[in-house]
Amino acid sequence: MLHDTLLAAIRHFIAVSPAEEDLVREWFVPETLAKGDFFLRPGEVSRKIGFVVRGVFHNFRSRDGQEHSYYFGREQEFIGDYESFLPAQPAVHAIQALEDAQILTISYDNLQRLYREFREGEKFGRLVAEQLFVDILRQLTSFYEETPEERYARFARTYPDLQQRIPQYYIASYVGVKPQSLSRIRARSVR
Amino acid sequence: MLHDTLLAAIRHFIAVSPAEEDLVREWFVPETLAKGDFFLRPGEVSRKIGFVVRGVFHNFRSRDGQEHSYYFGREQEFIGDYESFLPAQPAVHAIQALEDAQILTISYDNLQRLYREFREGEKFGRLVAEQLFVDILRQLTSFYEETPEERYARFARTYPDLQQRIPQYYIASYVGVKPQSLSRIRARSVR
Repeated sequence: MLHDTLLAAIRHFIAVSPAEEDLVREWFVPETLAKGDFFLRPGEVSRKIGFVVRGVFHNFRSRDGQEHSYYFGREQEFIGDYESFLPAQPAVHAIQALEDAQILTISYDNLQRLYREFREGEKFGRLVAEQLFVDILRQLTSFYEETPEERYARFARTYPDLQQRIPQYYIASYVGVKPQSLSRIRARSVR
Repeated sequence: MLHDTLLAAIRHFIAVSPAEEDLVREWFVPETLAKGDFFLRPGEVSRKIGFVVRGVFHNFRSRDGQEHSYYFGREQEFIGDYESFLPAQPAVHAIQALEDAQILTISYDNLQRLYREFREGEKFGRLVAEQLFVDILRQLTSFYEETPEERYARFARTYPDLQQRIPQYYIASYVGVKPQSLSRIRARSVR
């Protein structure tokens, strides 16, 4: 039952046979994290990808006493750090739970087996990577083309639930403004 | 011979059989563009991906009388707009040649055949998308974590040849500063 939303997320991209479904249940291992716990610490080599069943995480980097959050992963989304995971290099970024969380994790080796052994495994990997690429490209181009007000509106559309779930501090970081500026933007954007 | 660097780029990711090599030569069609020509115009639906044999392109958006360049593709790199290409929606961005250029283009349909029919076609698509994702993620996180000086240094490392090939105007846009600020940053960074 724990694996139901994960299987639905995979089936969004590819067909999964009953035998493959059994492997998903075997390879994706339950883990619970308390609020504040780290899924990945800077300097560690990321060796697994997580699927969020419950909770919300942020990817961030601490620098000059500030936490710079650039990604939020919550229910039915994958969390990970491809920059560390793919080349097996120490992570620059951290991934931390912002609420008590339940996740399902797959190891690097089992993910490679999934790509190789599932009938549409490689296709699944391609479609997920393409989706991630387009999402992050949109976030990148908004820095080039949009005002802070437009970026905040984009955040509110992309993550309608997060306003109530996480401190404004992290939202200001994501939008790319100081917390005081975010307060002003929010005040102006209230209808 | 025109396809040699393309085949090397593909073989960087996967093995290519002689029969598959023939398909690469058939499916990737030569095109020449003059400086200033568009590979993709805003509003068009992107139906092909290009591989640059010679020349340099930028992906950008015109807004408020300014061109916001966020990507440069040159020799041995792919150009395209996945945001339009994957869902077959009208492009928000444009892709334009900044020098006279020679490219090889593959249509959406032939790329899907490549994914399906090459022995490691899906794997190729996955590895390319993963690479694109990590590259763009690095560019994104630099906006969160780095100063304009550090972003300029990153540009100079990533694109050492482009300083001499394209107007400073585009470099300033990529770095995310006004052209005057770029002049100051460059003056300070000269050893």
